[in-house]
Amino acid sequence: MSHTQTIEQELKHVIADIPDFPKDGILFKDISPIFLDANLCSKITDSFCNSLEEEPDMICAIESRGFFFGILIANQLKKPLIMVRKQGKLPGEVVAVSYDLEYNKGVLEIQKNKIKKDAKIMVHDDVLATGGTAAAAARLIQQEGGNVISFSFLMELEFLNGRNLLNGFDADILSLVSY
Amino acid sequence: MSHTQTIEQELKHVIADIPDFPKDGILFKDISPIFLDANLCSKITDSFCNSLEEEPDMICAIESRGFFFGILIANQLKKPLIMVRKQGKLPGEVVAVSYDLEYNKGVLEIQKNKIKKDAKIMVHDDVLATGGTAAAAARLIQQEGGNVISFSFLMELEFLNGRNLLNGFDADILSLVSY
Repeated sequence: MSHTQTIEQELKHVIADIPDFPKDGILFKDISPIFLDANLCSKITDSFCNSLEEEPDMICAIESRGFFFGILIANQLKKPLIMVRKQGKLPGEVVAVSYDLEYNKGVLEIQKNKIKKDAKIMVHDDVLATGGTAAAAARLIQQEGGNVISFSFLMELEFLNGRNLLNGFDADILSLVSY
Repeated sequence: MSHTQTIEQELKHVIADIPDFPKDGILFKDISPIFLDANLCSKITDSFCNSLEEEPDMICAIESRGFFFGILIANQLKKPLIMVRKQGKLPGEVVAVSYDLEYNKGVLEIQKNKIKKDAKIMVHDDVLATGGTAAAAARLIQQEGGNVISFSFLMELEFLNGRNLLNGFDADILSLVSY
């Protein structure tokens, strides 16, 4: 692989197209091959960390593919990570938010009292699609007193206009590859 | 925190007891606080990597809390990672195995043709409980031609005797903290 390739080119080279997943008519972009390449994972982590306008105090990683680069970014920046999970997965006291999915409602949760007041938070997930999940996570974080300063995604599906939904948070929106 | 504390002592200090989760009568050991401490996460990763009798060619990380230290170990060893997920989550061609849960059956999957023949594999998950999940993951890996050389877990619930189920694989079994 040429050293002059950008990270976007490298990602487009390894992300696989899977037709009709999770249902007919959808062309799924499979990020699994990224994790087979440890050097690429390091480059991606560097790319996220070097693109930050402002260093976060904490990373909020969205279940479950968001856990991978969420923890790698947290590890590189030496910052704490909290999990954003679907309803019923997190033990102890939680705060919850519901949000619209295509045909029904979803619920996301974080554990209560884990975010310091005004802490600067990066929300991380693997894919920015409609933005519904990331926006719901950001509302949860605000509810707990946190200040969402950035959203980071491996991949952005531009035709779904997810940025529109996130613009209201006045936070940076970073994605490494767009389709 | 004293420098003379062992990793097991540090872990016991931060892992939280949550009564009656996920259901009445169960005392859940919550590992979430570990991820709030980036230095502890580094120590844990070092501890896993330094305890290896033999370096694996690949890490198989079990959904979804196993993704955290799975990818941190893979990152430190510069090795590829593949995901072991519940049925229907992985795109493309998969191989599946069913295994017994307390009251029903579970199904685990990995993507097909991602494991090189005879590749030395470490299976990683957050908790060793009955061992059913890890054993199922190991059977999947063998089915795909891989050679399971080690199991690693943050935590082991000794009273559930999970080691008994894993002993048949002739692989190292590593856990950092036992209850």
